[in-house]
Amino acid sequence: MKQNKYDDDRFFENYSLLPRSAFGLEAAGEWGTFRAMLPHLKGHSLLDLGCGFGWHCRYAREQGADSVVGIDLSGNMLERARAMTRDPKIEYLQLAIEDAAFSADEFDTVISSLAIHYVEDYGSLCRQVHHCLKPGGTFVFSVEHPIFTALEAQDWHYGAEGEKQHWPVDNYHLEGVRQADFLDHEVTKYHRNTATYINTLISSGFTLTRISELQPTPEMLEKNPAWQEETRRPMFLLLSAVKN
Amino acid sequence: MKQNKYDDDRFFENYSLLPRSAFGLEAAGEWGTFRAMLPHLKGHSLLDLGCGFGWHCRYAREQGADSVVGIDLSGNMLERARAMTRDPKIEYLQLAIEDAAFSADEFDTVISSLAIHYVEDYGSLCRQVHHCLKPGGTFVFSVEHPIFTALEAQDWHYGAEGEKQHWPVDNYHLEGVRQADFLDHEVTKYHRNTATYINTLISSGFTLTRISELQPTPEMLEKNPAWQEETRRPMFLLLSAVKN
Repeated sequence: MKQNKYDDDRFFENYSLLPRSAFGLEAAGEWGTFRAMLPHLKGHSLLDLGCGFGWHCRYAREQGADSVVGIDLSGNMLERARAMTRDPKIEYLQLAIEDAAFSADEFDTVISSLAIHYVEDYGSLCRQVHHCLKPGGTFVFSVEHPIFTALEAQDWHYGAEGEKQHWPVDNYHLEGVRQADFLDHEVTKYHRNTATYINTLISSGFTLTRISELQPTPEMLEKNPAWQEETRRPMFLLLSAVKN
Repeated sequence: MKQNKYDDDRFFENYSLLPRSAFGLEAAGEWGTFRAMLPHLKGHSLLDLGCGFGWHCRYAREQGADSVVGIDLSGNMLERARAMTRDPKIEYLQLAIEDAAFSADEFDTVISSLAIHYVEDYGSLCRQVHHCLKPGGTFVFSVEHPIFTALEAQDWHYGAEGEKQHWPVDNYHLEGVRQADFLDHEVTKYHRNTATYINTLISSGFTLTRISELQPTPEMLEKNPAWQEETRRPMFLLLSAVKN
């Protein structure tokens, strides 16, 4: 299923109010880690799968990327992205991630931020990304963590006083559709376990170079005590890999 | 801490009664997966870290390994291993995993089954294994899964009727000591997250070749309905990697 919730105007309105929508990358908790997993982008051609408002595309150009393509299925998202972009070297295309059929060896870097858990056929996606990357090219992406997506509720288990007792995990190995609630709307996510995320990359011809489960650092905890909660269970999984 | 619970006679007695102790590898649920992650062993020199009763050592020789070294800190374990082994090409050494200082490029394959979660300094271990492996050599090991070791209780969350409601996760990113109960004894385990297990391998000079979280296959579920429970949360993590 190619999902396009962001062209539902009420959903889009809610999404636009999130800090990461209003204030960009610096308001996204995982950004520092994601950025550190990117290669040096100077001179690169870069593809962003599920580019949303284009924050990552513009960042890539600031870092000296030569040409940037951002794709997204949502016209709402791309309209906003285009309004915020004055740069002829960034091209936004209205396309589902599943339909991103680019030429062989076209990109130095492919990135995707919190979009691939909406994609049903991850294996096909990995092969597509491998195809359009140059040899030695890098694929960096973030998804919601399998511990986070295993149960549809995606919520803590609460005690009698309403306190967050622990994070419940179940059906971890039952991969597939999860109907989850996001911004008061039902969205379809695909739960996969960590092994599937990694082995599919490897069998598609990538070498894994780093994995992050967004473990808060002492500095992060000092800067923002709300991060304490993120020590209890991982919310995001980030992977970087190079094409063999 | 170098733990030697297996020389506590009551603990050892209990351990000896486990199916995997009495009946060997075929009684260990993860064995089929572990075996599939091993390279062809013919002609190999192999090291087994925490060899216990020597089941894996004898298996390696059956597969044509040329020479096998099994180390374990427990005299009880090694006595039993030696009693079950008639093979001059298997050497059992009473050594803590932490003290396994072998020569450079000595082994084709290093394995470890459910022992490394008892080792405090995983980084040092990875560097040691890398040192004693030949270039292109393989490291395969299993540990208790981080989802399983995060909480000391290592147990389900039960409902009012005593039913297993879900698996509780907490303190996932707080790595370190867990005092867990095993066979009615307190044992010290070290919880690490999946990212640490993998990134430390990579930064020690390995390429990850496969990860398994022991997802039950349809065949496993048909053969043994008890495996159904293993679809709910992963108990084991298995990794294979080659020395760059």
